[in-house]
Amino acid sequence: MKSDLDSIMQARNMDAFVVFGNAENNPPMYYLTGGGHVSHAAIIKKQGEAPVYFFNDMERDEAAKSGLTLIPYTKYDYNDLLKKSEGNALLASAMRYQKMFEDVGVTGGRVGVYGHYDVSAIFGALRYLQKLMPDIEFTGEAREDSIFLRAMETKDENEVARIRRMGQITIAVVHKVREYLTSCEVRNDEVLLKEDGVPLSVGDVHSKIRLWVSEHGAELPSGFIFAIGRDAGVPHSAGNPTDLMRLGQTIVFDLYPAEAGGGYYYDFTRTWSLGYATPEAQALFDQVKEIYDTLNNNFDLNVAFKDYNKMTCEYFESKGHQTPLNTKAPIEGYVHSLGHGVGLNIHERPFSGLTASDDQRLKPGVIITSEPGLYYPEKGMGFRIEDTLWVRPDGVMEKLADYPYDFVLPMKKWKKK
Amino acid sequence: MKSDLDSIMQARNMDAFVVFGNAENNPPMYYLTGGGHVSHAAIIKKQGEAPVYFFNDMERDEAAKSGLTLIPYTKYDYNDLLKKSEGNALLASAMRYQKMFEDVGVTGGRVGVYGHYDVSAIFGALRYLQKLMPDIEFTGEAREDSIFLRAMETKDENEVARIRRMGQITIAVVHKVREYLTSCEVRNDEVLLKEDGVPLSVGDVHSKIRLWVSEHGAELPSGFIFAIGRDAGVPHSAGNPTDLMRLGQTIVFDLYPAEAGGGYYYDFTRTWSLGYATPEAQALFDQVKEIYDTLNNNFDLNVAFKDYNKMTCEYFESKGHQTPLNTKAPIEGYVHSLGHGVGLNIHERPFSGLTASDDQRLKPGVIITSEPGLYYPEKGMGFRIEDTLWVRPDGVMEKLADYPYDFVLPMKKWKKK
Repeated sequence: MKSDLDSIMQARNMDAFVVFGNAENNPPMYYLTGGGHVSHAAIIKKQGEAPVYFFNDMERDEAAKSGLTLIPYTKYDYNDLLKKSEGNALLASAMRYQKMFEDVGVTGGRVGVYGHYDVSAIFGALRYLQKLMPDIEFTGEAREDSIFLRAMETKDENEVARIRRMGQITIAVVHKVREYLTSCEVRNDEVLLKEDGVPLSVGDVHSKIRLWVSEHGAELPSGFIFAIGRDAGVPHSAGNPTDLMRLGQTIVFDLYPAEAGGGYYYDFTRTWSLGYATPEAQALFDQVKEIYDTLNNNFDLNVAFKDYNKMTCEYFESKGHQTPLNTKAPIEGYVHSLGHGVGLNIHERPFSGLTASDDQRLKPGVIITSEPGLYYPEKGMGFRIEDTLWVRPDGVMEKLADYPYDFVLPMKKWKKK
Repeated sequence: MKSDLDSIMQARNMDAFVVFGNAENNPPMYYLTGGGHVSHAAIIKKQGEAPVYFFNDMERDEAAKSGLTLIPYTKYDYNDLLKKSEGNALLASAMRYQKMFEDVGVTGGRVGVYGHYDVSAIFGALRYLQKLMPDIEFTGEAREDSIFLRAMETKDENEVARIRRMGQITIAVVHKVREYLTSCEVRNDEVLLKEDGVPLSVGDVHSKIRLWVSEHGAELPSGFIFAIGRDAGVPHSAGNPTDLMRLGQTIVFDLYPAEAGGGYYYDFTRTWSLGYATPEAQALFDQVKEIYDTLNNNFDLNVAFKDYNKMTCEYFESKGHQTPLNTKAPIEGYVHSLGHGVGLNIHERPFSGLTASDDQRLKPGVIITSEPGLYYPEKGMGFRIEDTLWVRPDGVMEKLADYPYDFVLPMKKWKKK
């Protein structure tokens, strides 16, 4: 939780940090400011002190919404610095950062740098700044273990409520897609038809998903997956827009919308087969569902998340599939890890990869996905079931949005002969 | 244009560059790959050679769409590197980058680093990589003058067509908003009413704008502005959702949608006053329109963009307003610069600030905004007119989407007494 930031900084011997960039779509900045339409801003926080927010004067109203201590960039005469630096914009920028650090009383010690932003400009400015402020050691952190992902790993009540709300939006959109698809007319060759008699394509469905997410005031900053057949067998294929929608093929629908302006995500997947399923597909789906249920029955408070990934690998290997447990980077079978934390980042701590650190546990306040899957692109099929789960303070794992797991979706205007 | 990248690299004595991050919402990566749903990727390009795209195997189909030379990350055994680095993820990541650079034949020289990405992880890894590869000098560039913003400064025909298409979407949405607002019933106190008789708020209009942009398959990755009254007088205020829509107040509507997935932007603003305008507002609007027209009549091929900003300042000062020409960071009057380039970045070269470099000119292939404005937050009013203009190869400045400049919008169900 955000209130843990100081103790995490202390444990890492970090005296201060700076976050660069916009307030939108920049998780560390959003975490500290609550978002808003603020660009090219910076926050400096000393350990044990409140963050100070440096902003462009034109965006003063948006910055004020953060409730943080504010300093406008106009306090620093950039044009004068540009003259002093003989037109070297990176050096002028570094000179301004120096004044900003001095103004908040940071002139030495270890300073972490953060933000989802322009890597080139920041790297360039930091090289100069390091020379201007030799008593500071500027440091970066691996994403998985950064102070922000550490703090974000557990959620407070307000964060849980916001993620839950995104869950409700997610299942409302998923249901609308399901109702739409199952209401379509079907051509003799089992291709779905739109109202106007034209074949329904994956691209048509993509457009509807975008529209229906938007109707709920949510956004898709990391995209989404609605893929059929072979593409469903490639876990991160978004789906080929020109593919036609057909009966009896597996559809992987992975929807992960976020609050507008770079806020909290939800993450959810269902696998469908319209009208009927081939026996092979049904058997594979049943396996995914079986391990999905087994996991739900076995999740336990404070157990390492990766232990459940290992359990999933062992189950799938017992059924004859390749998994990362005994195959290096498989492209068939179970090819990813079991899940990940969800919050302001679509993928955050705790992670569940087999080499994830042991301290990434199902502790109270954590919100994770559980998403076992099987992938056989050469067979033209893929399967994944995913829900987002909150580890409640009382130790119960609560699914944040309920939705049925049906694989075969009956078509309202079509019957199998 | 993209084909200029090699000559720009040569002129800067840059032997290679690396771009980090996702293919979406990361302009340099999008520029090289054409977008797609690829995360945590990297591209290394040697001067004079084709770019090489390093990608996650799960995203191989999306990466293949780029048409670039592909190397999957699975070629490098990250777990082995993690063991060698004793669990130091930043060092392991740097060791992998070292192998990647060696594989494309980059072992020395000046290497630029780019990407809109996790500043902390890249800064941390580059510090190790610099030690591992001491013959390379890793460099960052100021954003305004980076090789990418240089190359992107002129657009090819395909880019112009895509921006023009976004222009058509923009004016379609703007027109829909206009039709909606002018069709509303009006209460006795001049507040607009929704169909159900409830007052119409700025937040209601925001929701409709988001929905209508989405209906056209476009996105709002940098937000948008629809603000009324005092908020219209703060150039970058997005608008206060709880404000009610009223007659006779200035509305600044700045819409800058982009192609879905992080593609090309359009940028457009109109200022409206519903039903009627106060004489003071009308007079200020007329000034903005007058200088807007004067600029259009004076834009000339290969002239420095900032010269027109200066012309705008001089015009507004002649009318008694503060401008950056003689006032430091004014918050009333003309408070920003005249415009900016538009492309994969909502703000890119050429820039028009009074201190912009002299080489930022209206050369053929450039796409700019022209957006003079006046802001009086204390008077509760603001004004801006903005179109996106293409400097054609034949020297003509072409507006990429036509839309009327009406300030006072007559209400269909209301008449002034």
